[in-house]
Amino acid sequence: MNYTIAVIPGDGIGPEVMEETKKVLEAVGRKFGHQFAFQTVLAGGAAIDAFGECLPQNTIDVAKSADAVLLGAVGGPKWDALPGEQRPEKALLRLRKELGLYANIRPAKVFSDLADASPLRPEIIGKGLDIVIVRELTGGIYFGKRGHVETEFGEAAYDVEQYSVGEIRRISRTAFEMARKRRGIVSSVDKANVLESSRLWRKTVNEVAEDYPDVTLNHFYVDNASMQLIRDPRQFDVILTSNLFGDILSDEASQITGSIGMLPSASLTDGNFGMYEPVHGSAPDIAGTGKANPLATILSAAMMLRYTLNLPEEADAIENAVDRFLAAGFRTADLSGGAPDALSTKETGDRVAAMI
Amino acid sequence: MNYTIAVIPGDGIGPEVMEETKKVLEAVGRKFGHQFAFQTVLAGGAAIDAFGECLPQNTIDVAKSADAVLLGAVGGPKWDALPGEQRPEKALLRLRKELGLYANIRPAKVFSDLADASPLRPEIIGKGLDIVIVRELTGGIYFGKRGHVETEFGEAAYDVEQYSVGEIRRISRTAFEMARKRRGIVSSVDKANVLESSRLWRKTVNEVAEDYPDVTLNHFYVDNASMQLIRDPRQFDVILTSNLFGDILSDEASQITGSIGMLPSASLTDGNFGMYEPVHGSAPDIAGTGKANPLATILSAAMMLRYTLNLPEEADAIENAVDRFLAAGFRTADLSGGAPDALSTKETGDRVAAMI
Ligand SMILES: CC(C)[C@H](C(=O)O)[C@@H](O)C(=O)O
Ligand SMILES: CC(C)[C@H](C(=O)O)[C@@H](O)C(=O)O
Repeated sequence: MNYTIAVIPGDGIGPEVMEETKKVLEAVGRKFGHQFAFQTVLAGGAAIDAFGECLPQNTIDVAKSADAVLLGAVGGPKWDALPGEQRPEKALLRLRKELGLYANIRPAKVFSDLADASPLRPEIIGKGLDIVIVRELTGGIYFGKRGHVETEFGEAAYDVEQYSVGEIRRISRTAFEMARKRRGIVSSVDKANVLESSRLWRKTVNEVAEDYPDVTLNHFYVDNASMQLIRDPRQFDVILTSNLFGDILSDEASQITGSIGMLPSASLTDGNFGMYEPVHGSAPDIAGTGKANPLATILSAAMMLRYTLNLPEEADAIENAVDRFLAAGFRTADLSGGAPDALSTKETGDRVAAMI
Repeated sequence: MNYTIAVIPGDGIGPEVMEETKKVLEAVGRKFGHQFAFQTVLAGGAAIDAFGECLPQNTIDVAKSADAVLLGAVGGPKWDALPGEQRPEKALLRLRKELGLYANIRPAKVFSDLADASPLRPEIIGKGLDIVIVRELTGGIYFGKRGHVETEFGEAAYDVEQYSVGEIRRISRTAFEMARKRRGIVSSVDKANVLESSRLWRKTVNEVAEDYPDVTLNHFYVDNASMQLIRDPRQFDVILTSNLFGDILSDEASQITGSIGMLPSASLTDGNFGMYEPVHGSAPDIAGTGKANPLATILSAAMMLRYTLNLPEEADAIENAVDRFLAAGFRTADLSGGAPDALSTKETGDRVAAMI
């Protein structure tokens, strides 16, 4: 089969990790008889530098017409002084909205070969943490009304957190469907003891749960969830939450794995279309040094094969190759604690491609 | 001297831990020649049961006219089915607002005798974590406008996050003053890459920082802060943040200490007045079993002596007694991992009082 992939390398280490990911996808193509056509377009700082805007219309068009989107990472200190509307991150937010990517899927997985990397004690982390955070991605305070007003305490600025029943329903279904294929537990996170939007969230999640009698649902306040993730992360299977709480909790969960350079993510819409990107950022400090770990992006490509292109065997091939890479003792710089024999970005891509 | 303390025992283990705290304060009174008059009033579930409302006017009046307020804990499953406005937690929110307690101070401290309790690896937690979270407590999305509207996706509910320059200024000053007496670092946490209120927050904190050239200021996005607290908590001294982010991050930081039964908090207004309470909740599951750890409430009383009553020696006397209690190997049930020789709530109060 032929697939068109919109590739947005982005900034910092983005282009380097993307190069290796394409290499691995090509190896998959050779093995399974697929053709991947990569259409490279710009977004973020790279687009600001080239076109003076962080998300050119052409990028949106190419992304929309592709079978799936692969993204490296955007942003960096070079563009930090720009006003909010013109910053590289804005490209990410607009892409999510334009493409309708309301369901952000972030697995927080501890690879058994990397369990030592977790900052948590071995008694807590055990050997196989495997959580998925399902974060609502096109609503809430990220996309609500915002502005400035005058108050008795001087100038004030505001942002509106708002959720509709429809928005809560569809993201809840994503979480329940996912739990069904996993350990069957959805933990919904809100702040229903304070927020009206959280009370509607909880009520709606409870309603959706009625369609999934085989899935266990529990509710956590966000402050408690942030504690429980550290106290006993293994109690969770699928965490379902809002855009803002998901931003905070998914980063917390990533850190708990100790291997943020390994974590992929998917942002999905109705149907199969999606955008795939590593959880880590653009790491401008190590760009160009060959120290970047491409495995998170490579594993994002595996998620793309599984969720969007419906190629589970091909996805398995990548994930198994990464497992064998780790089991063989190969380590990138971020995983090796600075050992001199750490593999470079390119060596890592070469080895994983060879292991397909 | 004579001091009037409004005492709100609250629900669950609240009354039990409060009993021991009064005992310790009385020991302090005997040693230093003070008289503490305790005026016990109801709030939370206890007030709902007695008066049908979670915060009777008399409780507010007594609290306002006292020198300081000591609170145990409120809430429990018994009142969970009540609508938002009538729940025990509402008493807490209204007390904060009525008393103008805009500055919530939550130390997250690892006691060197309890360093093993931290869920983080010894290499990370070291021997002496000592962070203070300064959380804005009477503004933001906790007290903003909220309601329901109709949208194209059905019914929706909203909550408004809003901060004024005046509100940000005063809580920033609290943080900078605190940092001055500590290691001189303020880490301000916001989501300025997305929220307008966060951009005003960051700008205002930067302005206030000009009055504190001796203090180092850095900024974190809230998602990154939630990671850094786990990756390297010792990089922080004073964390300054909003009501909502402070709720999440202070619970995360508490959990990192592994000794949530030990952590006090203060909620302050301009001048010296304040309300003091443990960070832990009402723990209805262990109420009446003698297993509750009263040390967080006892240490809250020490904070009260220090911040509101301006009795630093007396505060030291309590904190030193608790240190000696731990150094002598005494442990409450929550700290002992269920060892049969764990001290009861009352035995703990007796010992600490005797050590004053
Ligand atoms: C860059 C930023 C706007 C973004 C977010 O907050 O969603 C990032 O933190 C993420 O989680 O993808
Ligand atoms: C009970 C709840 C309303 C409260 C809050 O969110 O402020 C609590 O979590 C706290 O942190 O004191």
